[in-house]
Amino acid sequence: MMQADAFIFDVFGTVLDWRSSVAAGVEHFFDNRDKSVDGHRFAMDWRSLYIPSLMALMERGDPFVKLDVLHRQNLLAVLEKHGHTGLVDDEIDELTHLWHHLRPWPDSVAGLAALRAQRPVAACSNANIAMMINMSRSAGLLWDAVLGAEIAQAYKPAPQVYLKACEALELRPENVMMVAAHNADLAAAREQRLLTAFIRRPDERGPDGNPGAEPDQDWDLVADDLLDLAQKFSGSG
Amino acid sequence: MMQADAFIFDVFGTVLDWRSSVAAGVEHFFDNRDKSVDGHRFAMDWRSLYIPSLMALMERGDPFVKLDVLHRQNLLAVLEKHGHTGLVDDEIDELTHLWHHLRPWPDSVAGLAALRAQRPVAACSNANIAMMINMSRSAGLLWDAVLGAEIAQAYKPAPQVYLKACEALELRPENVMMVAAHNADLAAAREQRLLTAFIRRPDERGPDGNPGAEPDQDWDLVADDLLDLAQKFSGSG
Repeated sequence: MMQADAFIFDVFGTVLDWRSSVAAGVEHFFDNRDKSVDGHRFAMDWRSLYIPSLMALMERGDPFVKLDVLHRQNLLAVLEKHGHTGLVDDEIDELTHLWHHLRPWPDSVAGLAALRAQRPVAACSNANIAMMINMSRSAGLLWDAVLGAEIAQAYKPAPQVYLKACEALELRPENVMMVAAHNADLAAAREQRLLTAFIRRPDERGPDGNPGAEPDQDWDLVADDLLDLAQKFSGSG
Repeated sequence: MMQADAFIFDVFGTVLDWRSSVAAGVEHFFDNRDKSVDGHRFAMDWRSLYIPSLMALMERGDPFVKLDVLHRQNLLAVLEKHGHTGLVDDEIDELTHLWHHLRPWPDSVAGLAALRAQRPVAACSNANIAMMINMSRSAGLLWDAVLGAEIAQAYKPAPQVYLKACEALELRPENVMMVAAHNADLAAAREQRLLTAFIRRPDERGPDGNPGAEPDQDWDLVADDLLDLAQKFSGSG
């Protein structure tokens, strides 16, 4: 019998629709400068550098840096690829901050509230705390605490990110449920003995569909969105 | 011209009425066991051990321990003083957890919400994160983040507690306003260059009044409660 005494959440893709938000922001930015860009491709290219840049950081044994810093570094490569070099620092900062104002999925605000009515909810993202505060205020998300990478001084899927979150909640991993739209995130959480909830987000990667939107393990719960998770969880007790 | 881009809050006494809550809880606990206790005195005695126990911890150079642990240790001394020894572990835990369910002052929930509508708000208390989550859910407080002692691995008034909170917010101390009902807390914050807001809480120490309820420095703002602070702040910009 599973007993989840708190939920911790992946945020990019699981709660917030990063792709369409970044795509729209990038297109707006270049429209204002009479330049054209494929916002969708730009967003996808930017995001695709995220995991490799984390991995490189960890392999080099570099100290923890905030996600904003990684986003900014990766942005320079994407700008070059898309033929938009020569921006000034303020413009590069403005684009980097697009990640601070991402739209929630249509169910996210109400679904998170419905889960929060049942158990404490905490963000457990690779976003740094200030970034998470901005994103949450912008999207209208309410958390009981912001945990995740900055607290652990490491990035998911490193075990300590999940374990530090449980420690801060003063709960055993067996009693904490990780909620994510990504199998790899849940696999890393399960390896630390956390409970797991998979959310289907078929639109995360846009019109061509998201090949990772189906569960690849028998996660403890599988839901179509956060409202569905809240309902399934309340029925599981 | 002061510019506060976020508020960080002391919580015990400033936002929550620890004394009347602990007093009522202690009286209820002993009533159920047909024993009598002066709840007010008990709460005051328990709280009076708090600062000395922190100081002793810091002087010994002990590693950081969560506030629950200190509360529990101090409780044993108070139980002995009040002639109520012989409790079992579960009972001692039950009393220790009274601190997780403290009543807000009548203005706290609405006042915090009115401040949060203007700027990000974060708890910056000596309470550990799990304790703060319980207290906040119980009292209906909404924070953008829980910062404070556990994040800094030190207790206020140590400088790093204030500085770590600013760092997590990615703000300069000059742009963060510490809100507290205690002059010493604000003095420590001001020493790190934070902005300061003093809240008058004349009832914090009960019917005999609170001698520390008046400002002893020219704090940046002085308010009668959190709603008053929200109003004064919105008028200060």
